[in-house]
Amino acid sequence: MSDRSIELSSRRGLLMMAAAAGVSLATPRILRAAASGPKFGGDLTAVRAAIEKQQAQALKRLQSWIALPSIAAENRNMKEGAQMMAELLKDAGFQNAKIMPTDGQPGVFATLDAGAKRTVGMYFMYDVKQFEPSEWSSPPTEAAVVERAPFGKVLIGRGATNQKGPEATWLAALHALKAAGRKPPVNIVLVAEGEEEIGSPHFAQVVHQPEVLQALSKCHEVFMPFASQSPQGSVEVFLGAKGMIEVEMVCSTERWGRGSKDDIHSSYKAELDSAVWRLVKALSTLVSEDGNDPAIDGWFEHVKPLTERQKQIIAEKVANSNEADVKKLLGVQHWVRDLSYRDALERLASQPTVNIEGMYAGYTGPGGKTLLPSKAVAKLDFRLVPDQTAEEAKTKLLAHLQKRGYGDIEVKVTGGYNPTQTDENSSLIKASLAVYKSEGLSVSLSPRLAGSWPGYIFTGPPVSLPAGHFGTGHGSRAHAPDEYYVIESSNPAVRGMAEATLSYVKHLYALAAS
Amino acid sequence: MSDRSIELSSRRGLLMMAAAAGVSLATPRILRAAASGPKFGGDLTAVRAAIEKQQAQALKRLQSWIALPSIAAENRNMKEGAQMMAELLKDAGFQNAKIMPTDGQPGVFATLDAGAKRTVGMYFMYDVKQFEPSEWSSPPTEAAVVERAPFGKVLIGRGATNQKGPEATWLAALHALKAAGRKPPVNIVLVAEGEEEIGSPHFAQVVHQPEVLQALSKCHEVFMPFASQSPQGSVEVFLGAKGMIEVEMVCSTERWGRGSKDDIHSSYKAELDSAVWRLVKALSTLVSEDGNDPAIDGWFEHVKPLTERQKQIIAEKVANSNEADVKKLLGVQHWVRDLSYRDALERLASQPTVNIEGMYAGYTGPGGKTLLPSKAVAKLDFRLVPDQTAEEAKTKLLAHLQKRGYGDIEVKVTGGYNPTQTDENSSLIKASLAVYKSEGLSVSLSPRLAGSWPGYIFTGPPVSLPAGHFGTGHGSRAHAPDEYYVIESSNPAVRGMAEATLSYVKHLYALAAS
Repeated sequence: MSDRSIELSSRRGLLMMAAAAGVSLATPRILRAAASGPKFGGDLTAVRAAIEKQQAQALKRLQSWIALPSIAAENRNMKEGAQMMAELLKDAGFQNAKIMPTDGQPGVFATLDAGAKRTVGMYFMYDVKQFEPSEWSSPPTEAAVVERAPFGKVLIGRGATNQKGPEATWLAALHALKAAGRKPPVNIVLVAEGEEEIGSPHFAQVVHQPEVLQALSKCHEVFMPFASQSPQGSVEVFLGAKGMIEVEMVCSTERWGRGSKDDIHSSYKAELDSAVWRLVKALSTLVSEDGNDPAIDGWFEHVKPLTERQKQIIAEKVANSNEADVKKLLGVQHWVRDLSYRDALERLASQPTVNIEGMYAGYTGPGGKTLLPSKAVAKLDFRLVPDQTAEEAKTKLLAHLQKRGYGDIEVKVTGGYNPTQTDENSSLIKASLAVYKSEGLSVSLSPRLAGSWPGYIFTGPPVSLPAGHFGTGHGSRAHAPDEYYVIESSNPAVRGMAEATLSYVKHLYALAAS
Repeated sequence: MSDRSIELSSRRGLLMMAAAAGVSLATPRILRAAASGPKFGGDLTAVRAAIEKQQAQALKRLQSWIALPSIAAENRNMKEGAQMMAELLKDAGFQNAKIMPTDGQPGVFATLDAGAKRTVGMYFMYDVKQFEPSEWSSPPTEAAVVERAPFGKVLIGRGATNQKGPEATWLAALHALKAAGRKPPVNIVLVAEGEEEIGSPHFAQVVHQPEVLQALSKCHEVFMPFASQSPQGSVEVFLGAKGMIEVEMVCSTERWGRGSKDDIHSSYKAELDSAVWRLVKALSTLVSEDGNDPAIDGWFEHVKPLTERQKQIIAEKVANSNEADVKKLLGVQHWVRDLSYRDALERLASQPTVNIEGMYAGYTGPGGKTLLPSKAVAKLDFRLVPDQTAEEAKTKLLAHLQKRGYGDIEVKVTGGYNPTQTDENSSLIKASLAVYKSEGLSVSLSPRLAGSWPGYIFTGPPVSLPAGHFGTGHGSRAHAPDEYYVIESSNPAVRGMAEATLSYVKHLYALAAS
């Protein structure tokens, strides 16, 4: 995901998360009996046996996939990755899996006709984030399975949890059904892309193909497999996600036509304009004095407040959380403006943000250098909430700068997602929650992920379907070194790969019964 | 100098400078007859012959000195550099040259008693700026002499012009006098330091030693040799220099106690404070809306306006300059606020500045990274004019930030000089101008260098003497790769090393006659 799961970027984060988990370290049996509740799929004894028998093979399939990293930013293994994606789908029972060229990297469009009454839409990504092998404790393309307390046996590799692990687990469910002599309970329409990590710039070109739209028109939802259990076992279900534009703002004397074209000795400052001051002043107009509210003209025009139900969901989450633990995990002493935890979570779900991801200008080495820099750069992300759109955000940002005389500052929009929202009463959410409940899992419902994913391509027109990504299992450190995915869990509340496979089987039956 | 000569930092700058010079490329004779005017030193035939005879040796002496780079920032060759400085002085006729320990790197205190009526104070530095050999076209410690159009034969090396070249040229004047059977016409008190390039933090410890103060009390001025001819041949004489403090401002969530202690995923921005926004907002309060005037509380309290005479000097400079050429050289289309050249030069001489030398925070690589950074850093220099002081500037900056609630932002003052001013009617300036006039050189007088040097240690109490650094000869690219000093000049208006040596001889006689 360019931005889907919210990861702590430091190793310290991982350790604290582990410490906060406080889970049992007892060795688990691979497949425990499900908790009481509705029996999705009826008697799954044969399916369970098939999962257990095929687990080594399923793991090997995932490891082979991780061994071929497709990275759009580096144009690495893209054709090969799309090819492998198509083959993985065919192996799992899809009758058709077609490579779909785009102006960027190819997507894949696949269909599985099970002769079922109901058709389910699926979203996959086959690309992964860049990585630097020297930063890993285990080689990122080797996908070794190692013991890592307190989680148990985890697979370490790029794509382990984002997104190949959960996707391979979901495919294992199809393999198990077949081995158990069952047809999938639903027909499946699957679209996959290879540019998720660069913001899905061409994915709409795949989805909007007439044959794809035609196929998706039979679906009631679009689902993406995700290992969304917390270390404590709670399944996080987000009913939407913020949108985002990512922007690079470049202020240069050359474009401005003022100051010196080149970096020059700083003593000239008295008679020459500075690109750095200009960028600082321009940036300063984008947010409130404390840096916490967007101050861009008209920014809140289409911002919808939280509904009473959304506020209620947050209140429930607060009641089930330990604020001190969360603060410790995040390394935080105060929420903005010393808000209560509830108010902080309401802000997190409801407020658009303007964030400086990074910034640089002039001399950045040790000590000083008496320089008047000719260029300054800031990288920003702007999180959007319903009913803002990425296009609207871009237009308003440009107009805001233009109006204040900063029209020469280059604004490169490097990516954009609209916000996405899915109805709590949709079949997707109801079926998913029912499965988790049947498994005795606690659910952490949230009105909106503060991160972003390309779900809007499905929730927005012309597809206009509920869409979500969640599931059992646990993984973390997406985009970071030592990304992992739990294969065998030490914590009875957290599903390992085989248990998560069974959960996806039930999920298919639950959707079939919707 | 940490900041004395104003250098363009790009190679393009050098080329344009060369192009703007438009000088004759005819091979020069080493020693031309001086222009008509007062005969400082009387018949200098023997001295001239000595200079000519000793030129190879003088050049070799300079090359040996450059081969031993003393760099305080790297604690490199400091003891050896001070030792060599002392030896160079003794070789040139100083009876005493004593290494002076400080809390930092050692200085040197030397005296030459010529039995003369008048005693002249001198300031030397033996350290040089850091360098990266791979960036040089000729190895920086080899000090090779190469042909370089349009200047002629130039020596390329670190310290070539800043400051070993001019200093070695001045020492050559003493050697020539001796070889010609003359005593120096003045007694000399010389103080040298090895920390000029890091802002002279311990030089006052040398100068304020009772024996040094006692020796300097016999002097009427303090002079530093400088190759201050422009490529066109005009000798630049500055009657003062701005002061400066250099500052690193660091805003961190850890020190602030808000936001996350570590870099964290940017989606948390809605509920967490940002160190980058905080620094941007704090910086923004330091300057006017267009970034051109300091806006720090009380900053202008002790700022003195230009005198009528200073304005007149600037007007004369404007009359003798081609604004278009200057703009081209600097890569500039407009002065701040579209000022006239005269107003721009008045600002340059008279106004304090706040400049961002460099800035960095968060992710600065290619593309974006959805990060909420925990730290942001800005490097600034604050130029000061009479009667501001470095100490006052530091105090006012801290108070300004404190008053606005930014007291947690770390402010590391990494260096500081007071402004310095020398009377146009002082013996130093009058004698120097008389020498240049006698040589038929044009002089570019300026009320104040916009850069900074440690002259305030002499012009301020307890020494309180006129001080200046200028001289004939040309060099450039101080602090940059391919720093050079003209040894044999292609331009009759620009002095080569031997001619500059003769000029320093006359300068000694001119000071003796003051």
